[in-house]
Amino acid sequence: MLASTTTRVKRLTSFSELRAWRSSLKDGDSVGFVPTMGALHAGHSSLFKKARRENEQLLASIFVNPLQFNEGKDFERYPKTLEEDCQILEAQGVNAVYLPDREDLYPEGYDTTVTAGRVGDVFEGYSRPGHFEGMLSVVLKLFLRTKPHRAYFGEKDAQQLFLVKKMTKDLDLPLTIVPCETVRCEDGLALSTRNSFLGTEERERSLCIIHALRAADALYASGVRVPAELESVMRQCLQEEAGFFVEYAAVVDDKDFQSAQENHLGSWRAILAVRVGATRLIDNLLLSESA
Amino acid sequence: MLASTTTRVKRLTSFSELRAWRSSLKDGDSVGFVPTMGALHAGHSSLFKKARRENEQLLASIFVNPLQFNEGKDFERYPKTLEEDCQILEAQGVNAVYLPDREDLYPEGYDTTVTAGRVGDVFEGYSRPGHFEGMLSVVLKLFLRTKPHRAYFGEKDAQQLFLVKKMTKDLDLPLTIVPCETVRCEDGLALSTRNSFLGTEERERSLCIIHALRAADALYASGVRVPAELESVMRQCLQEEAGFFVEYAAVVDDKDFQSAQENHLGSWRAILAVRVGATRLIDNLLLSESA
Repeated sequence: MLASTTTRVKRLTSFSELRAWRSSLKDGDSVGFVPTMGALHAGHSSLFKKARRENEQLLASIFVNPLQFNEGKDFERYPKTLEEDCQILEAQGVNAVYLPDREDLYPEGYDTTVTAGRVGDVFEGYSRPGHFEGMLSVVLKLFLRTKPHRAYFGEKDAQQLFLVKKMTKDLDLPLTIVPCETVRCEDGLALSTRNSFLGTEERERSLCIIHALRAADALYASGVRVPAELESVMRQCLQEEAGFFVEYAAVVDDKDFQSAQENHLGSWRAILAVRVGATRLIDNLLLSESA
Repeated sequence: MLASTTTRVKRLTSFSELRAWRSSLKDGDSVGFVPTMGALHAGHSSLFKKARRENEQLLASIFVNPLQFNEGKDFERYPKTLEEDCQILEAQGVNAVYLPDREDLYPEGYDTTVTAGRVGDVFEGYSRPGHFEGMLSVVLKLFLRTKPHRAYFGEKDAQQLFLVKKMTKDLDLPLTIVPCETVRCEDGLALSTRNSFLGTEERERSLCIIHALRAADALYASGVRVPAELESVMRQCLQEEAGFFVEYAAVVDDKDFQSAQENHLGSWRAILAVRVGATRLIDNLLLSESA
């Protein structure tokens, strides 16, 4: 008989339980933290794996933050799969998971908001007004409550990662933000909770996203440093048709998340957002010097 | 020969010096913190006295925060009196003073802002756009850097005090905000750094501020619970003439800093802001049940 390699994950359903758990840890133990909205998939597991290797204690959180959903429908249909999530947490060796409800995180009268500059208003911020304020506010609250040494964020949400790093630096929060590479299906589609909303044809259609990013990458590797040309090749791959719309396809400088400047050296990232039927998908790729 | 009763105040001119001082303290020692913009007067001293009684260690900061000045002129003419300030700090038994420069507090690229809800947009927030965002952002940074157990704020800036308390609660910051009663001259004028800008006649004219607040207080004590009547009696005392303008004269509920509602029970506060020549003065009074 094989012994189970999983341990029970401790469920912390309130700030006071979280606080008690946090202060029960040994002083020298480092805490890795992975904030999530649940509906966990292999993309999240890669964060847990990295965090597990780098920390004595591994804490996750699951909270579908109403403040960062600008569309009520998107919030309502966001999957809630707690028991399946806990199985994944246990398989990944997560020690504890913080499961606040809305009242625990936002007591009545809560009204404090954080922004991290103009980058919060463009691309995702433009398409989803209030999204980044809501995201940063909950992340700040979670950081202040969980006091981690490291926090793990996926590169798939590149603009989110940029803003979380910026807020953390600007407020001198004593933790390191660790970026984790985007996990993709074999055919290149980035893992995302929202993929589950796609019909078979929509799923097929969505492959043009990775084709677009790779086309920009190939052009960049061939020496092209003209953002308009890179954006144009992406748009050629993302041809709009009924039920498929491009919200943005752009190239930004990874340092400041501003639109890349022709021939300026720097680390460029191709980013895009599309709507496939009722589902909104985003993806990005850091452009590499050599093919 | 009398021994000097003052001790040297330790001057911390950078975050790293602050951090070193902070971590040199004994674990059990409580830290009281008084953030200031310098130009210290007896109003500040009353904060130091209270904080000195309640804490093992007493830390002040002096930083004229450019982010909370919406008028460049007001920022430029704000008095800088470091050596006099340090004498006051020493006389009050302050252990250390954090004296960051702009670059230490806001390294290049700093762009994070905190708001604490709609109260930040009315009264002072309406007259001074951006003021409270700037104030809250620097206070949050100072709290996160200094990690005090208690922080002391004057009731003279009642709306500031309200918003600092709100942010502290909303973000679960582990400290207590301690309000300190407004200190007044014998004739009733609230102490303020900006009083030094008043000419003799302006100084005389400014006494109508305390007369207005006391008139509202007397009317309230007589049983009047109609905000419009209380505001009207204040405006009668604050008759506008050349060089004297009323920005607002209002009655708010102290619980939520919203305009008081006729006949609603609660703790009411009369607040006002006037311009006397080039100088802007604010004051307020918690209305008391009995005269």
